[in-house]
Amino acid sequence: MSRTLSDRERLAWLRLARTENVGPVTFDQLLARFGEPARALAALPDLARRGGRAAGLKVPSEGEIEAELAAGAEMGARLICACEADFPQALAALDPPPPVLWALGRPELLDRSAVAVVGARVASAAGQRFARGLAADLGQAGQVVVSGLARGIDGAAHEGALPFGTVAVLGGGVADVYPPEHRDLHARIAETGCVVSESAPRWKAQAKDFPRRNRIISGLSRAVVVVEAEARSGSLITARLAAEQGREVLAVPGSPLDPRAKGTNDLIRQGAALCEGVEDVLRALDGFSGLREPPRGYSPPPPDLGDDDPAAQALRARVRALLSPTPVARDEIVRATGVGAPAVAAALVELALAGEAELLPGGWVVATEAWASD
Amino acid sequence: MSRTLSDRERLAWLRLARTENVGPVTFDQLLARFGEPARALAALPDLARRGGRAAGLKVPSEGEIEAELAAGAEMGARLICACEADFPQALAALDPPPPVLWALGRPELLDRSAVAVVGARVASAAGQRFARGLAADLGQAGQVVVSGLARGIDGAAHEGALPFGTVAVLGGGVADVYPPEHRDLHARIAETGCVVSESAPRWKAQAKDFPRRNRIISGLSRAVVVVEAEARSGSLITARLAAEQGREVLAVPGSPLDPRAKGTNDLIRQGAALCEGVEDVLRALDGFSGLREPPRGYSPPPPDLGDDDPAAQALRARVRALLSPTPVARDEIVRATGVGAPAVAAALVELALAGEAELLPGGWVVATEAWASD
Repeated sequence: MSRTLSDRERLAWLRLARTENVGPVTFDQLLARFGEPARALAALPDLARRGGRAAGLKVPSEGEIEAELAAGAEMGARLICACEADFPQALAALDPPPPVLWALGRPELLDRSAVAVVGARVASAAGQRFARGLAADLGQAGQVVVSGLARGIDGAAHEGALPFGTVAVLGGGVADVYPPEHRDLHARIAETGCVVSESAPRWKAQAKDFPRRNRIISGLSRAVVVVEAEARSGSLITARLAAEQGREVLAVPGSPLDPRAKGTNDLIRQGAALCEGVEDVLRALDGFSGLREPPRGYSPPPPDLGDDDPAAQALRARVRALLSPTPVARDEIVRATGVGAPAVAAALVELALAGEAELLPGGWVVATEAWASD
Repeated sequence: MSRTLSDRERLAWLRLARTENVGPVTFDQLLARFGEPARALAALPDLARRGGRAAGLKVPSEGEIEAELAAGAEMGARLICACEADFPQALAALDPPPPVLWALGRPELLDRSAVAVVGARVASAAGQRFARGLAADLGQAGQVVVSGLARGIDGAAHEGALPFGTVAVLGGGVADVYPPEHRDLHARIAETGCVVSESAPRWKAQAKDFPRRNRIISGLSRAVVVVEAEARSGSLITARLAAEQGREVLAVPGSPLDPRAKGTNDLIRQGAALCEGVEDVLRALDGFSGLREPPRGYSPPPPDLGDDDPAAQALRARVRALLSPTPVARDEIVRATGVGAPAVAAALVELALAGEAELLPGGWVVATEAWASD
């Protein structure tokens, strides 16, 4: 259920998305509860206080948001909000989608059938050659190749797919070229393909940005191919996200003597399709059951529960006590408290805004460092 | 149901096994029909003639068989017949088992839990290193490593497992050292492990001996690990036989850029367990459902059907017409003819003895070259 945003609504949308402690899940829940970003913004200080936050929540000023919009416009980038018609369908199908996406280049590529090709930064020459060839074959077969512009496999995949229009998803802003040796590749993708990011255009990538970047890589794609990956590497996280998002996962096998094949061999053992070339990917796409339906339209808003009373406070304390640094399912908290899901969701959003909890996609909740600090 | 053979029975057993056109299936069927090799031998000329054979069937003389027994005894090898108590249980569980086995070395190893490690003759250094290490780890874990003494992976597997007692299965006789550079390895296996073969001790291997050799490699083993194999290679046949025999199949993955990984990656795609080391093999053995029960004891014999009458001749002609160079299931012939399975089996044995048909394990029948020649 897409809608058209006025300039003011767009400003409020982005402002809410850029507010401290507001991730995609919290954004989504606030929108479901308040209907409009402006109403959510107005309620934020109160919600954070209820969650236990003493100092004020850092909400960017309208001026800061206008500066972000101006910076994007200056470099020719476009902001696409999750509720808008041209937001990529594959991303809109996520639960929840990223609230916003900046796109530099040809955003129409984002609605084509896409395949992610990702892998190790420290990749073997053979692995890079394979990634380059596979990406070219996928481009030839009409697929858009998505990757993360990192060193190694990512860069090789973009290079192979360059003539067909390839999509680079960055952790930093669309203008944040990293690694430096990919400056030229970045420029060519911005011209013939598309560079996208959830971050502000001039934002410098930090480690914490990469989980959200990885979620967009898999989210834009019907299939994710992992080419080389050591055990416990970032590409395996992208593969896991892809599986959670209902996308196909493929992995390229390698010798057990090569540590860069450990991760991909593990994926195959866990059920990923074995990928030796483009035919395997096309076969997986044939079997692809389709994007999930977008889980909701952003209306109508549920009533504010007015939970400033002692019972609501007691519930927040109980929910907080149930959290731990190990992710726990929201449903489990609902069961443990014995109150309804809406009341628990409200308490979790407040704890998230207060910096006590982090709400993860897939209905998981994890305690933050602040939680442990008292 | 094992039995003890007198010297005369043993002689007849081996003589029937060495008769022209008598493979394991035909041997098994003749034994089921006549109860005793001596009775089957007496009936052979008649059966072959019924199958359409003009010239006499080549049955070795008693002298020739005594010479084989003497040659084996001279080199310290032991003949074990399929009906004897010390015939390896894993082989006895095959349908049908090889009629005889010559063993040089320590035949008691043949009844230990065993894992075959096989692969390409033209193997990479890395593949050989992996095979050597895996075989040593399997030996350490108490498994007997079985392989085919070929160049490449087979040789490396034997080397790795040598300190633990390893079993080499040859296409030629147990004294047929091939390749020449494995002379020392052969000698050491004969001393500390076991060299086995279905062929006569001094027989020189021919291409046609290797399918039966491969069937024994998988037949002796609870699991078969294929280390490197090009598409359509012999190791893949061993893997297929293992699957048909209800044994576990594992394959070591490799880069799609390495043609020696094509076969193993294909196996994984088809459902073989991915093998990166000894833990994967031990896990597969944990899941092993056990050897199948030996399908029969060699008694009591069914009555001779006396099929020299015109109806029996017409049936043989019909069965012969149903054969083709593509294997066909015996059950399908039974269905197509509309007569009972015993009559069809009798006709097939006669056609096999006449050289018109070859009876394959698993109930398959294939026409031979003689079949096409008229």
